[in-house]
Amino acid sequence: MTTTSDRPVETTTNTTTGTAGTGRATSSALHHEAAEGRVDVAWLSTHLLGRWADLRASARATAGESAFHKIEGQSKEEHRERVLEQCRALAAKGQVHLAFPERLGGGNNPGANLAGFEELVAADPSLQIKAGVQWGLFASAILHLGVEEQQDRLLPAAMDLSVPGAFAMTETGHGSDVAAVATTATYDPETQEFDLHTPFRAAWKDYLGNAAVHATAATVFAQLITRGVNHGVHCFYVPIREVAADGTAGAFLPGIGGEDDGQKGGLNGVDNGRLHFDHVRVPRADLLSRYGAVAEDGTYSSSIDSPGRRFFTMLGSLVQGRVSLDGAASNASKIGLQIAVTYANQRRQFAGPGTDEVVIMDYGTHLRRLLPRVAETYATHFAHDRLLDLFHSVFSGEQDTPETREDLETTAAALKATSTRFALDTLQETREACGGAGFLTENRITSLHADMDVYATFEGDNTVLLQLVGKRLLSDYARAMKGITPGGMARYVVEKAADAAMHRTPLRRAAQALADSGSVRRAAGHLREEETQRALLTERVDAMVEEVALALRPAQKADPVKAAEIFNQHQVALVDAAKAHADLLRWEAFTQALAGIEDEGTRAVLTTVRDLFGLTLVERNLAWYLINGRISSQRARTVTSYIDRLLVRLRPHAQDLVDAWGFGPEHLRAKIASGAEAERQDEARAYYRALRASGDAPVSEKSQKKAAKRA
Amino acid sequence: MTTTSDRPVETTTNTTTGTAGTGRATSSALHHEAAEGRVDVAWLSTHLLGRWADLRASARATAGESAFHKIEGQSKEEHRERVLEQCRALAAKGQVHLAFPERLGGGNNPGANLAGFEELVAADPSLQIKAGVQWGLFASAILHLGVEEQQDRLLPAAMDLSVPGAFAMTETGHGSDVAAVATTATYDPETQEFDLHTPFRAAWKDYLGNAAVHATAATVFAQLITRGVNHGVHCFYVPIREVAADGTAGAFLPGIGGEDDGQKGGLNGVDNGRLHFDHVRVPRADLLSRYGAVAEDGTYSSSIDSPGRRFFTMLGSLVQGRVSLDGAASNASKIGLQIAVTYANQRRQFAGPGTDEVVIMDYGTHLRRLLPRVAETYATHFAHDRLLDLFHSVFSGEQDTPETREDLETTAAALKATSTRFALDTLQETREACGGAGFLTENRITSLHADMDVYATFEGDNTVLLQLVGKRLLSDYARAMKGITPGGMARYVVEKAADAAMHRTPLRRAAQALADSGSVRRAAGHLREEETQRALLTERVDAMVEEVALALRPAQKADPVKAAEIFNQHQVALVDAAKAHADLLRWEAFTQALAGIEDEGTRAVLTTVRDLFGLTLVERNLAWYLINGRISSQRARTVTSYIDRLLVRLRPHAQDLVDAWGFGPEHLRAKIASGAEAERQDEARAYYRALRASGDAPVSEKSQKKAAKRA
Repeated sequence: MTTTSDRPVETTTNTTTGTAGTGRATSSALHHEAAEGRVDVAWLSTHLLGRWADLRASARATAGESAFHKIEGQSKEEHRERVLEQCRALAAKGQVHLAFPERLGGGNNPGANLAGFEELVAADPSLQIKAGVQWGLFASAILHLGVEEQQDRLLPAAMDLSVPGAFAMTETGHGSDVAAVATTATYDPETQEFDLHTPFRAAWKDYLGNAAVHATAATVFAQLITRGVNHGVHCFYVPIREVAADGTAGAFLPGIGGEDDGQKGGLNGVDNGRLHFDHVRVPRADLLSRYGAVAEDGTYSSSIDSPGRRFFTMLGSLVQGRVSLDGAASNASKIGLQIAVTYANQRRQFAGPGTDEVVIMDYGTHLRRLLPRVAETYATHFAHDRLLDLFHSVFSGEQDTPETREDLETTAAALKATSTRFALDTLQETREACGGAGFLTENRITSLHADMDVYATFEGDNTVLLQLVGKRLLSDYARAMKGITPGGMARYVVEKAADAAMHRTPLRRAAQALADSGSVRRAAGHLREEETQRALLTERVDAMVEEVALALRPAQKADPVKAAEIFNQHQVALVDAAKAHADLLRWEAFTQALAGIEDEGTRAVLTTVRDLFGLTLVERNLAWYLINGRISSQRARTVTSYIDRLLVRLRPHAQDLVDAWGFGPEHLRAKIASGAEAERQDEARAYYRALRASGDAPVSEKSQKKAAKRA
Repeated sequence: MTTTSDRPVETTTNTTTGTAGTGRATSSALHHEAAEGRVDVAWLSTHLLGRWADLRASARATAGESAFHKIEGQSKEEHRERVLEQCRALAAKGQVHLAFPERLGGGNNPGANLAGFEELVAADPSLQIKAGVQWGLFASAILHLGVEEQQDRLLPAAMDLSVPGAFAMTETGHGSDVAAVATTATYDPETQEFDLHTPFRAAWKDYLGNAAVHATAATVFAQLITRGVNHGVHCFYVPIREVAADGTAGAFLPGIGGEDDGQKGGLNGVDNGRLHFDHVRVPRADLLSRYGAVAEDGTYSSSIDSPGRRFFTMLGSLVQGRVSLDGAASNASKIGLQIAVTYANQRRQFAGPGTDEVVIMDYGTHLRRLLPRVAETYATHFAHDRLLDLFHSVFSGEQDTPETREDLETTAAALKATSTRFALDTLQETREACGGAGFLTENRITSLHADMDVYATFEGDNTVLLQLVGKRLLSDYARAMKGITPGGMARYVVEKAADAAMHRTPLRRAAQALADSGSVRRAAGHLREEETQRALLTERVDAMVEEVALALRPAQKADPVKAAEIFNQHQVALVDAAKAHADLLRWEAFTQALAGIEDEGTRAVLTTVRDLFGLTLVERNLAWYLINGRISSQRARTVTSYIDRLLVRLRPHAQDLVDAWGFGPEHLRAKIASGAEAERQDEARAYYRALRASGDAPVSEKSQKKAAKRA
């Protein structure tokens, strides 16, 4: 233990946000059994800035400037113009150019770039997404899919925003299934141009940021057809609007049409729209040709022979969107939780056993709704750090192999799908935890929820992403199986049978129950062990994947209709396995991160937070553990009560844990988390204290009646 | 079986909404094992209109008129004025006067009134809530808390909206704990007036609909103090703003101040605001004096002697808000699901085994995310019907007893808390199920979600309401225990011990597992039995309540601090018991309603829907059933696979089940559910068919490579 653990809880002031945690230790009504240790908030919040701490801190400072903040209640037209101006300011700062080549004025630092980019969500998610469209998609497509000549020719204007661009991949008819987009680009050797065409309404490009108003060019994805052969989806650079003298977007160029997507559930600072093409001619040179080129005579060539692998390589080069959404979602959860916990530590409701009303953070229901989410947010944070490392090592070229790319894509899919859903649930829960006040826009959470909503379905629909993860798990499993010799396979089958017998029969459960009997404390202690949590989480993933793999086996020999049916029957189980995998990833990242927490007191508290996360996962899937004989019902009974104990022990650290995320009032921008509630509560209590002291306080009818009865 | 069950599925057309279910039977890729029976959509949608069918149908028709629709993207100022005008139109129609006395032009029909009122949510939730504030709260306070003279004097202007009013109960500092509001009304016998006063900032009235702009009067709740005694919270009629010549609201009257709550997460057509009072004089006659009056000399009198019972009687008279929110939430879930299911039956994505892409409703994941919600919505609907009956029988005076009132309040609390949360989850799930299209405001769901959000915390915070239900369950339990003689008690304790031994020991589970072994089908059949479902759901409530009751016993003899701590430790368990109770209520209502479904084919399908609901509840709480020995792990394994079978059997009825709710395109107002998607898909498929037939289709590089390999 360092000395930090000896500091009394009461005197700690909030060093980072200025939102005084007045309520933190004033809960006279309830005794807390504090977790050992003490969070060093200043140290932890610096530590959490991570690998590119300076750049992240600077981006966070930018997000705190009022010029970049969302103005609530603006019309979408005003909001769109404001966000465009903000993007221009970002371009001027150069903050958004970090990922681009140094020869073009960039920083060649993809990891740092994303670290900064995901901080923008605290200013305005519309700004994050509009910037994401411009630099993360439009310009990135030029960077990753274009050759050096094209980069040199097209990137500077994309980088400095003199050409705002749309990323025209999705169509009304095809979102998740990008390989099936219907827009065609047919090569015409006569003119050495591609004929870009939208064959029917469902093939209109749709939901494209920048497309409704601001874009003057687009990177358009279409089926490349030359010499009668469709070579699959490729990307083309296409000017789409006239550029006025002042550089702003004018009318559509000939052959191009479009539509405004109009009002949306959120992100109304982004001008999403539709585009369609009527035999638009695109010069041969504007096929972004890094992975596929067409010669003058129409001969197609590519460095990647397999059309499937080529397609996934092209798409994979744009994985950064998913990575950054994971980080942004994690930040949104933090903001919601910091608001709700700060308010709950100041707000009082219902009389306690003394004269004061109870601080609502002390209620059992409130601890349950907020603290496990704080724990899960830490897991999400640390998992994102690992993802960012992986992303940087691939995209900086440090470790760019097919294997690391595949790992990156799978991890990004698993974490993006998990953290965006978690952010929405968390924002909803925190909004409700703040009662009616949570519904007011001045308290931020509803606005953030509305903006984050679409994160669950863009850059890869979460359900589709989880299937992608599930398929990777299956192929890893199949690969592992392949290495087994026939003799080994026989042994394996026998072992599995024994495992099922061991885990699923009442016999073993009876034995475990006997071993556990009467010793709730020991059973709980066992659950707190790192190795126990790891074993429970790992075994679950393994068993689920195996179960799906075995169930799908008959599909190999079935006709296509029957095979599709078998796959479909196990789609939910596959998605569940992917979720379990994401849970394990997050738990491992959290556990790994504990080793890097040098301050002992902080580490002690965070270890309890990690345990809370681990046990929350076990509790969430308790039926599975019981059915599959991994936990006896005796022990299962202890999971919930042990979580309850962890909640009480973490209660005194709640404010520290959210403050350590390092967002200040300029990021929270929630009146109820500004200290105003504490002020109101203090004023009210002072009023009643004075009234009681004055002797002028009216008697309550109830106590008068009681007194009358006694007389 | 009637002949309806013999009609082939394919030829049924949608009779109610005109949203052709094109995708319904075209899923060539997947074989469906249809549930027996066939939904008679026209019959069912009429049947579901319920007890006040004509009035509900007429209110629904009103909600379908474009004049009452929300215009998306309006500023809050425009929206507020529009909704006020709509309220005037409703007042002119008289639809909102059904609950008021006939002598004042009302209909004296409280049930019919609510049935109509909750339909307004389909037009614009802001309209529902603004109307709710005016007639359900402000005017209702006069009706229920005032005496006849006050009704005659004050109601007409409230009814015809010549006096828009605020319902000034909640304060910034006290929402859920109404008994503790800090505003005081101190009687002054000198002037025969009350001195209405706000002692500090936390006592400002807050979140009051109509208060920001439109209200010229308010029903204000304050602590009534006379002759030095505080008689608790009472309601006062207080003019708050000048009335301009044209009848609109002018400046605040002297002593009154306020503030606009500003932009909110939704419901921006309602002008919520704050009010405060600086020694405002209220005539003695304007204390709404049905349950408490003050004589000229300041003597207080009430027909209800106990101040506690008086308070709850006054609050109970305003229960209709909760009842109507339950109905409105149910309607919102229906709209979200009808949009998502209709779209899912038309939308196609990813190639199937044939040439067509797969209708997304056919995906296992999609069935899982939508159909159990359809089932739960039916349960919510039928439970609400029962609640409305109960409400009507109490408020029409047919069966107005303390017991029925208590039942009504508990049921309203349980159902409102359940259905509002369910609606939010359902709207979120349906929005995501519609992908990016779901995020566009033109497809409605995000707008509805934003508006419904606050339903979870207003008219009683859901967590607080569930605690109220839990406490009622505890007191029922205590009452039941009281009736037991000491000898009986001893027997009871022994029986309980035996029960625990029976249910919780591995022995019994081993026996059950043995009995079940190998017979998954039989185990599933067992779960489908009505009595099994009832037993599982009922036993769970009973056991949970008892467990909390026993755990709380030590609190009786503990000091207040310790007692509060014990209660707090079991708050979550109490809320969980209340949720289990609400689940049982809804399941019983659904089961009871099946008997009223005369059409056999429809009843057969709805019985399967009920089973899906029942088993979904069992699956959701499977860990509890396992831990408490109610289900063996062998049988538990069959729950999920049996649900999967039910989903496949209900798949062909999905469109019928949502169409039967009877909302038309004028209520859905979602482009993706208008048939446009089917049109786009048909056009795309026709294009590809023609292209294939023409022989001009480009060869894919992949098939070309395959052919080259073969050669």
